Amino acid sequence: MVQTIFSQTSYEIPLTQKAVTFAKTHGPHTIETAWPVTQPKDLKPGEVLVRVVYTGVCHTDLHAWLGDWPLENKLPLVGGHEGSGYVAFIGPPLAGAEPSTLKVGDAVGIKWLADSCLHCEECNKGYESSCAKAQNSGFSIDGSFQQWAVSYAAHLTPLPAGFPLEAAAPILCAGVTVYKAIKEAALLSGEVVVIPGAGGGLGHLAVQYAKAMGYRVIAIDSGAEKEKLLASYGVTDFIDYMKGDVVKAVNDLTGGVGAHAAIVVASGAQAYEQALQYLRPHGALICVGMPPNGDIKANVFWTVVKSHRIIGSYVGNRQDAIEALDIAAAGKVHTTFTIEDLSALPSVFERMKALTLNGRIVLDCQ
Amino acid sequence: MVQTIFSQTSYEIPLTQKAVTFAKTHGPHTIETAWPVTQPKDLKPGEVLVRVVYTGVCHTDLHAWLGDWPLENKLPLVGGHEGSGYVAFIGPPLAGAEPSTLKVGDAVGIKWLADSCLHCEECNKGYESSCAKAQNSGFSIDGSFQQWAVSYAAHLTPLPAGFPLEAAAPILCAGVTVYKAIKEAALLSGEVVVIPGAGGGLGHLAVQYAKAMGYRVIAIDSGAEKEKLLASYGVTDFIDYMKGDVVKAVNDLTGGVGAHAAIVVASGAQAYEQALQYLRPHGALICVGMPPNGDIKANVFWTVVKSHRIIGSYVGNRQDAIEALDIAAAGKVHTTFTIEDLSALPSVFERMKALTLNGRIVLDCQ
Amino acid sequence: MVQTIFSQTSYEIPLTQKAVTFAKTHGPHTIETAWPVTQPKDLKPGEVLVRVVYTGVCHTDLHAWLGDWPLENKLPLVGGHEGSGYVAFIGPPLAGAEPSTLKVGDAVGIKWLADSCLHCEECNKGYESSCAKAQNSGFSIDGSFQQWAVSYAAHLTPLPAGFPLEAAAPILCAGVTVYKAIKEAALLSGEVVVIPGAGGGLGHLAVQYAKAMGYRVIAIDSGAEKEKLLASYGVTDFIDYMKGDVVKAVNDLTGGVGAHAAIVVASGAQAYEQALQYLRPHGALICVGMPPNGDIKANVFWTVVKSHRIIGSYVGNRQDAIEALDIAAAGKVHTTFTIEDLSALPSVFERMKALTLNGRIVLDCQ
Amino acid sequence: MVQTIFSQTSYEIPLTQKAVTFAKTHGPHTIETAWPVTQPKDLKPGEVLVRVVYTGVCHTDLHAWLGDWPLENKLPLVGGHEGSGYVAFIGPPLAGAEPSTLKVGDAVGIKWLADSCLHCEECNKGYESSCAKAQNSGFSIDGSFQQWAVSYAAHLTPLPAGFPLEAAAPILCAGVTVYKAIKEAALLSGEVVVIPGAGGGLGHLAVQYAKAMGYRVIAIDSGAEKEKLLASYGVTDFIDYMKGDVVKAVNDLTGGVGAHAAIVVASGAQAYEQALQYLRPHGALICVGMPPNGDIKANVFWTVVKSHRIIGSYVGNRQDAIEALDIAAAGKVHTTFTIEDLSALPSVFERMKALTLNGRIVLDCQ
Repeated sequence: MVQTIFSQTSYEIPLTQKAVTFAKTHGPHTIETAWPVTQPKDLKPGEVLVRVVYTGVCHTDLHAWLGDWPLENKLPLVGGHEGSGYVAFIGPPLAGAEPSTLKVGDAVGIKWLADSCLHCEECNKGYESSCAKAQNSGFSIDGSFQQWAVSYAAHLTPLPAGFPLEAAAPILCAGVTVYKAIKEAALLSGEVVVIPGAGGGLGHLAVQYAKAMGYRVIAIDSGAEKEKLLASYGVTDFIDYMKGDVVKAVNDLTGGVGAHAAIVVASGAQAYEQALQYLRPHGALICVGMPPNGDIKANVFWTVVKSHRIIGSYVGNRQDAIEALDIAAAGKVHTTFTIEDLSALPSVFERMKALTLNGRIVLDCQ
Repeated sequence: MVQTIFSQTSYEIPLTQKAVTFAKTHGPHTIETAWPVTQPKDLKPGEVLVRVVYTGVCHTDLHAWLGDWPLENKLPLVGGHEGSGYVAFIGPPLAGAEPSTLKVGDAVGIKWLADSCLHCEECNKGYESSCAKAQNSGFSIDGSFQQWAVSYAAHLTPLPAGFPLEAAAPILCAGVTVYKAIKEAALLSGEVVVIPGAGGGLGHLAVQYAKAMGYRVIAIDSGAEKEKLLASYGVTDFIDYMKGDVVKAVNDLTGGVGAHAAIVVASGAQAYEQALQYLRPHGALICVGMPPNGDIKANVFWTVVKSHRIIGSYVGNRQDAIEALDIAAAGKVHTTFTIEDLSALPSVFERMKALTLNGRIVLDCQ
Repeated sequence: MVQTIFSQTSYEIPLTQKAVTFAKTHGPHTIETAWPVTQPKDLKPGEVLVRVVYTGVCHTDLHAWLGDWPLENKLPLVGGHEGSGYVAFIGPPLAGAEPSTLKVGDAVGIKWLADSCLHCEECNKGYESSCAKAQNSGFSIDGSFQQWAVSYAAHLTPLPAGFPLEAAAPILCAGVTVYKAIKEAALLSGEVVVIPGAGGGLGHLAVQYAKAMGYRVIAIDSGAEKEKLLASYGVTDFIDYMKGDVVKAVNDLTGGVGAHAAIVVASGAQAYEQALQYLRPHGALICVGMPPNGDIKANVFWTVVKSHRIIGSYVGNRQDAIEALDIAAAGKVHTTFTIEDLSALPSVFERMKALTLNGRIVLDCQ
Repeated sequence: MVQTIFSQTSYEIPLTQKAVTFAKTHGPHTIETAWPVTQPKDLKPGEVLVRVVYTGVCHTDLHAWLGDWPLENKLPLVGGHEGSGYVAFIGPPLAGAEPSTLKVGDAVGIKWLADSCLHCEECNKGYESSCAKAQNSGFSIDGSFQQWAVSYAAHLTPLPAGFPLEAAAPILCAGVTVYKAIKEAALLSGEVVVIPGAGGGLGHLAVQYAKAMGYRVIAIDSGAEKEKLLASYGVTDFIDYMKGDVVKAVNDLTGGVGAHAAIVVASGAQAYEQALQYLRPHGALICVGMPPNGDIKANVFWTVVKSHRIIGSYVGNRQDAIEALDIAAAGKVHTTFTIEDLSALPSVFERMKALTLNGRIVLDCQ
């Protein structure tokens, strides 16, 4: 445990704080040192003030800043949606069976889905991220690139006891996202899942979740360093996509019949096309990576004759987040990350654009 | 539509109202005429004041009054959990993506599950009625045997447009309960479901839901009147349990292999025992009827060799309620009921105990 | 019942028969009158000789003749895979628990999937049509465009007692295919399924199956005649794709949130594109129609954010065939068809190409 | 690999062999040395002659001998249904897509389910062990307590390449049975499964499968030796049922809410009763252990209110067997067993009755 801020039974809440903001799409970032903190008296029923200790940086944060997604975010914006910290103050109570079993000092996570109505068909079915009223941290509301964030009791994720906050941060988006995606494939124990982009920020977690869930993993990425990282998770089937025919390689590793599923966390169109080639009949292509203008092109004839399933998987719901954290806290999933200071965010974005990042970055908000 | 109270954009809320209460278990009922109405200013965030127009009377209400269940209810109590009416006033708003899309004048239903935390593992998984913090209408909080009831925005069921309030009332508990129970059997279209107690309050709805869902129904009950009622729903396979061998009859009707499922809404132990005899391998016995001291006794050897499933089904969640109402509003399910005045409740209980009720009773709370 | 051949306890098996054949792709058809009949002594273990009474004509038969699919069929070929008739002779018995409970005179159906190994992972999981050793009637082996066909005990479909053979024929491919496709959508009772191509050979069956399974149907097709046909099945939501905006129309009919599933039996690319526009989050696009060179193009971003599922559905397995026939035999599904003589097959193909067929054609093989 | 018989491309098949038989229920066993071998020319289509190398001994074999089950077996009988060996000769081929991809010399397993019709509703749905025509090895037909056994191509289980035959034997019944039972619980990764009888022949495999599938295991058994064995599989939550309150212990280990499932492989009634006490709402009690005269007694009220599921799980199907073997061959499941000579069978039964066996016994049939 790196953090020095600990759980407290009460917090002295300052009037201002550190935060990183931007006022317009692709505009300059500002490292604020006197950004206002929402005061306890201003919290509404259902709201919670969180003392953010760590926050991950996700590609989605970069997209929000670049504005290259076909969705509009709030401006000016405090981004960030992989925040871990402590409950600092809880807003006025609700009636009835109050959602919150939270108390001040509880370790909690702020995830992409900040809030949803919990009352519509989507929410009723557990598809909370598809709620028409969904709020997203660091996108439609301010997120975790600050020290004191307002979030919602019904959606804050309780963190497992003793799990380090800096390790929890990347699970809250990257971990949940890949865990949920693997669940969507509905595999049986021992079945074969291919993970293109296995050595990246999402991929290295997907590999570990898939193994923890009992599946056989074929990892696709490039380079000896990635291969070594993946070997450290027990991956023995590695395909370097720069060296030879990926489709043939998967078929060779599966006795010629192909894989049961592909979890595409890579963002290239090629990874999607190849997956449709190496999936066995009834195989599932789970779409996670989101290139801004990319299309999946699936031949109807073969989609039908092979009975393929192409499934979009979008983050996860509140229960998925709890499960993903539990699996990680049980020691089955480790994130490869580096800690930097909150003020390094603009530099992190530059490195992310330049594709020079190795592993996940976690920012220290203390 | 029988009711004379209509949807209004605002309601004049009186200080007192009619209500039926009892102060101690199995004690006398009081027909109150000046029972206090919770005033708008006293509503808490998440609470809603409902103008009850109709309410069904369920066996559970009788159990609450008799106190013969191994659970304790609130005292004194206003019972009732099949209430239909209009939103009269909405409590202070919550923060974030407010659960309530409700507005004053909306037709809504009060069901057994009045509230749950929507934040625990059970709620996250859609098992809201298993929430440790669940509140039950007419049991742990006051229910629908009154004119103005306080309920919860997150759990009130929106009623389908144009569906008569008096027809909606029995769906809110009896309908939801049997619909959910049938879902638990996970049948394929055309598969055979046996319904012991088919002619009763729950049974006659179960028969219609099962047919609406595409299953083949074998109805078990007794007497020409029940047979005629069931024939009016299109049931052609009727077994009179007073006349001969039920197990043999089911086997004869299924080519000797037995049924895919039994939805036991009858409360006798015999119905459970027989079901285990006439279910085919992998058949499902869905338990709904709740005799106070009854046990299911299943032989382990045959449970294993026949791969039987015995599943307890307890009311339904918020989504089940919406679905059950939608199916009824589409004209596929009709309740056989008689309307009486709210003040007739004590008499209804007496007739319920004496088993002289025919069909469901709906009370007029206007 | 139109047929004049009835079930017999034994059959006099001739040496030659009527059959329609073609020797090369897109070559002329021959109306054979002395085509050899496989004699009982030549049947191998597991084979059955079927006296074909009726056979449907499917678009797949046309594709086999045209040779415009990326798969090769047997030549010369007796096509046809919607055959209904009687067991005339059963080959030598197998050891052990013999698959066949068949006896001479049983009414049986010949479907697209003629045989599979029943021993591989695909067969074990019920994905028999994906078996690497699968044989297809009227494609890899001779089919039902003859009077006496050899088929396989393990895959022949027993026909429901009393169900007319001419009505069974189109269920054996068209019916099974759409029934299975609807199952793939995994809908809840009352949910909304859109069927583009609803008035066609597959579509008019899909509409009826969807209604029998308890779903709400929105039918898409064109023209007053189709609308009238569909109204005769109880369809009230009809969209004429020639008159206005299909996507808007579906959204209007679903309160702005879109449909739960689309079963695309139409073969135009437009139907696929529109479906992805009007599906609600987590909605399922089930692909059935197979244009020779068509692609589904799905935007990755929206596939993920809407959590869409695109699922190829290829005919059905043996159990699907039994279920589809049971539902039809229960009177819930009626095929619109015209009976012609077996020798009319070449003319049927011409009309099929010219798109001048109305409803399904069933050929009389007596 | 202990065995000295290896895969061969052809076998010299003797006229007689070693076998252990009994002629009447609970009568003496005979160690035959000149028991007839079914000769190749006498094999029927679909039959396969297997050179048995190893066979496990299961409690079911003891029950068959004692005749204390309410089912009748063949007499005289060669028991045994956990046989591993090589294909020695394949009977005449079937027509069509022959089930058998087997060839002489293939390593195969003989399991409890020797054959089923593969054509009825149960087989079609993958419930092969519920087929009305099912044949059981060492029960309705002769089994693996001999050197040369006749079995069926469609049901023989191909063994994973390189997996030792002696290790495969106990997986073929004990392993498959517990693996399938755990699947029936339909758990999510990380959920809590309790295994009463965890240290026994079924239990020690169940524990390892549950962990391989990603679940958290609470093991129940008694004594330091069992605890140590289970600790060697990584089990940290062990409850000694002789020392204190099992129900309380499970609740304490699950934060007071109880377990998601119990896989009862213990044969005492107490294990079933306790499970119903410590399961959380919607928890699943999977019944595996089969006491001859035992009943599960479940209170209807609590079964309903807790929405419990009680599910009988009976061995597994052909696909389950393949999956269970694959998981073991991947090194995730190890059987604790001792090898003795085939002739030791009567002594093994005596020790089994006396409850003095430690771990599983595998008999050498070479």
